[in-house]
Amino acid sequence: MERIAIDMDGVIADVAEQFLRYDERDFGRRKTWEEIAGLEERKAFPHCREYVFSKGFFRTAPVMEHSQEILQQLNASYEVFIVSAATEFPQSLAEKLEWLGEHFPFIPWQQIVFCGIKTIVSADIMIDDHFKNLDHFPGATFLFSQPHNFSMNDGKHKRVYSWPEIASILL
Amino acid sequence: MERIAIDMDGVIADVAEQFLRYDERDFGRRKTWEEIAGLEERKAFPHCREYVFSKGFFRTAPVMEHSQEILQQLNASYEVFIVSAATEFPQSLAEKLEWLGEHFPFIPWQQIVFCGIKTIVSADIMIDDHFKNLDHFPGATFLFSQPHNFSMNDGKHKRVYSWPEIASILL
Repeated sequence: MERIAIDMDGVIADVAEQFLRYDERDFGRRKTWEEIAGLEERKAFPHCREYVFSKGFFRTAPVMEHSQEILQQLNASYEVFIVSAATEFPQSLAEKLEWLGEHFPFIPWQQIVFCGIKTIVSADIMIDDHFKNLDHFPGATFLFSQPHNFSMNDGKHKRVYSWPEIASILL
Repeated sequence: MERIAIDMDGVIADVAEQFLRYDERDFGRRKTWEEIAGLEERKAFPHCREYVFSKGFFRTAPVMEHSQEILQQLNASYEVFIVSAATEFPQSLAEKLEWLGEHFPFIPWQQIVFCGIKTIVSADIMIDDHFKNLDHFPGATFLFSQPHNFSMNDGKHKRVYSWPEIASILL
């Protein structure tokens, strides 16, 4: 059975939407997609470092559309691991576990990994929104399209735009 | 640079000593080494599941003798990752991060991994006290001798009894 390492933020957790909400709260206006596409998060959202270290940011993040039903199907055909670069944010660890328990109850603790850098991950397939994680991965790679990586060259990775697209390839 | 995956509990955190202290608190007498050697933890310490889910158990665990100075030396010659099977114990995650920050401040968040099962780990060398983690690891393996594994056959793993012994092999 092939093993898939699936990122949380920007892949199953819609942190771009969460950033937009926090940014609107602080600046009084919701930024448009055109304003943030292609910008690193720290440029698109000036307070983003403050947000990711604040209580509740990860716990209340919206779920990426269709990720739940498709992950449940993948979980039946693949060895699924949720792999999140989370140890930089100590307060996020319990929040992320709770969030997964609420929204992905079919993923048990055995299949959850919180790490710093992802070179430690051994798997066949990686789905991630960051080049820094995909570029050093020896297996098959899918770049989950997000505003922060939108205008960047896909490099050697297969860019995917939605969970149904992933389903059409892997299921 | 070779990568080493180093376990926390029973390798750099002396949880056997912590179990002995909690058990003595509950039963009024400190068990002897002879009484616990070769026993699974749940048999040696009847309340052990309650202990590992209780607040403070991991935060106040003693440091394994000589692990700090030798890990600091290893960290200069190897790519060191601390890999702890911790996602079963939600309350332990923040405690383990704090414990590492206090006792191993030279290990940054980039080098810390909290997971469920360790098949996900890609490294060259693994130091662990549990066969379930070592048996499926494709690289070099060291079994850190602990009461719970004491009378078990080492199998294909190199049994080590102390951090200075690890230093004599790897440094």
